[in-house]
Amino acid sequence: MLKIEHIGIAVKSLETSNEIFSKLFNKAYYKEEEVTSEGVKTSFFQLADSKIELLEATNSESPIAKFIEKKGEGIHHIAFEVSDIRAEMKRLESEGFILLNTEPKNGADNKLVCFLHPKTTNSVLIELCQEKNKA
Amino acid sequence: MLKIEHIGIAVKSLETSNEIFSKLFNKAYYKEEEVTSEGVKTSFFQLADSKIELLEATNSESPIAKFIEKKGEGIHHIAFEVSDIRAEMKRLESEGFILLNTEPKNGADNKLVCFLHPKTTNSVLIELCQEKNKA
Repeated sequence: MLKIEHIGIAVKSLETSNEIFSKLFNKAYYKEEEVTSEGVKTSFFQLADSKIELLEATNSESPIAKFIEKKGEGIHHIAFEVSDIRAEMKRLESEGFILLNTEPKNGADNKLVCFLHPKTTNSVLIELCQEKNKA
Repeated sequence: MLKIEHIGIAVKSLETSNEIFSKLFNKAYYKEEEVTSEGVKTSFFQLADSKIELLEATNSESPIAKFIEKKGEGIHHIAFEVSDIRAEMKRLESEGFILLNTEPKNGADNKLVCFLHPKTTNSVLIELCQEKNKA
């Protein structure tokens, strides 16, 4: 794993939370993006070499809607950048981690992603990600 | 705010979780440290310019013991490095954020730290930190 690529935070309203985090970081988000397949609208703040991703559900079946219903707003996942997502998925599976998808899937921000089941990672939802044009 | 300095993860057993995260990151933690005033034992993993800090409670009054009792293991806080903690505390207070301490206090890893109340930050516990020898 190369670095913390981003921290994902589940929010009820992107509009309200963009304002909160703009004040917190003293700067604006640099982009918004919708990931239809995941049922989320996202915004990104850059902090040095990592990002904060705010996630708002766009429908009630979205993982973010379910997360907020169960736990409320808050930190949803940590994403780590990897240099070879398929190799890393294979290595982690052999170490006993449970992958939530067997093939990398499309995430926000031009990434291939794979999630690890929190029950094998101290209840932390972890995302592996790799830039598509580096894949 | 300069960067994500670390992400703090509450764990029941540092020994067990050191093993989990060593496998996850494919490298060992680089140090352990006890912060008596906070009732925690910590370990640190380096990932590029940021760290993952595992936190185990050393007594039942520790904030980590209370967190785990209420929410279970998982992500506890995000720490952002700032260049001038007192100036940043003043700025954030004027923006309406609630500080959990009025003066910076001693944290792990040779830092001055201040926490923000999660109710003003989308239920995310945020720590500001500054290297003591840069203060």
